[in-house]
Amino acid sequence: MQMVNPPPRKRGRPPKQDPDFNSTRESILRAGVAALTEKGFGASGLDEILRKARAPKGSFYHYFPSKEAFGAEAIESYGAFFAKKLDRHLLDESLAPLDRLRAFIADAEQGMRRHDFRRGCLVGNLGQEMAALPERFRDQLNAVFMDWERRLAACLRLAQAKGEIAARHDCARLAHFFWIGWEGAVLRAKLSRSAEPLLLFAEGFFALLSA
Amino acid sequence: MQMVNPPPRKRGRPPKQDPDFNSTRESILRAGVAALTEKGFGASGLDEILRKARAPKGSFYHYFPSKEAFGAEAIESYGAFFAKKLDRHLLDESLAPLDRLRAFIADAEQGMRRHDFRRGCLVGNLGQEMAALPERFRDQLNAVFMDWERRLAACLRLAQAKGEIAARHDCARLAHFFWIGWEGAVLRAKLSRSAEPLLLFAEGFFALLSA
Repeated sequence: MQMVNPPPRKRGRPPKQDPDFNSTRESILRAGVAALTEKGFGASGLDEILRKARAPKGSFYHYFPSKEAFGAEAIESYGAFFAKKLDRHLLDESLAPLDRLRAFIADAEQGMRRHDFRRGCLVGNLGQEMAALPERFRDQLNAVFMDWERRLAACLRLAQAKGEIAARHDCARLAHFFWIGWEGAVLRAKLSRSAEPLLLFAEGFFALLSA
Repeated sequence: MQMVNPPPRKRGRPPKQDPDFNSTRESILRAGVAALTEKGFGASGLDEILRKARAPKGSFYHYFPSKEAFGAEAIESYGAFFAKKLDRHLLDESLAPLDRLRAFIADAEQGMRRHDFRRGCLVGNLGQEMAALPERFRDQLNAVFMDWERRLAACLRLAQAKGEIAARHDCARLAHFFWIGWEGAVLRAKLSRSAEPLLLFAEGFFALLSA
């Protein structure tokens, strides 16, 4: 996020009841999440985000009190979006528990492919940049990872109950291991512009489960 | 790296035979590598790097033709430094092959702890930022990973020859798996300011080897 100063509020903050306020705000947030997912916080410019959201140049501070507040909201928004995506797969009772994880992985792979491996993970990007970000983001980013880990651990416990995972494994630790490595795999997929790191990491993870 | 324009070269490029030229240049490179290892390319400012290197403010372009060339040199420099560190452990004939990897991991953990988990991996940071970096960095960063993977694969093959790793494993793939996940672990260690992700990832990796 380029650290430009807020422009003077010549036109004042639009009234909250303005029907366009929420939809423009939502568009800016959506374009911001896409930019952060691709380039991280430091390299994402407000002008570019506004342009992609088709919002007036310079209007950012009408909709968000600060860049930091915007970033915090983008993390929440992405975390919730991603938790929903995870649930769609991990709670899918039509599949065996480990096949649900496989379905998530296939979905993530297709998502990266669809964006030509330019977009990765917003939480991974901002986590990597943390040394240069507002300190309040740290707890938020850690909390998002813990949320994803809890969701995956629940699915792994189901798999363990069905004998798909050896009883000696601790599913919370396995879920933690998965997200640690998965973020590395997304990083390498972006860098090599290929799904291969995702698939190789997944293969190793499944081999570990049956170990 | 903040994209400020080069200042005019009022004093001209110092002559190469100047005994201070190489040592100042080396100090700037060293300070730059430290900054990139902590904050990545986007958030590292030239002024801060010069200040840490005790080089005159504004002197950057006396020593480097461009920020991009500087970044490329920093990647090379870090890649070579890290390969040497790897070799120190992975070629240590006083240890069994897998204990060499354990020694590297312990060294990396101590290194992160020494810098209070602020510094991670330069190659991981720049890999994560790749969408906003000069495209020529991509091949360089991938090449560094491949170099590290080759070094680790050689050590894993030794371990396999001694029966420390099951014969059915492909050591090149294991080494690839290790570096994919390790970068995720470094990211999480920075974010949580703790060695726990490094140790948990390592534990899972060793479990996989004996699977």
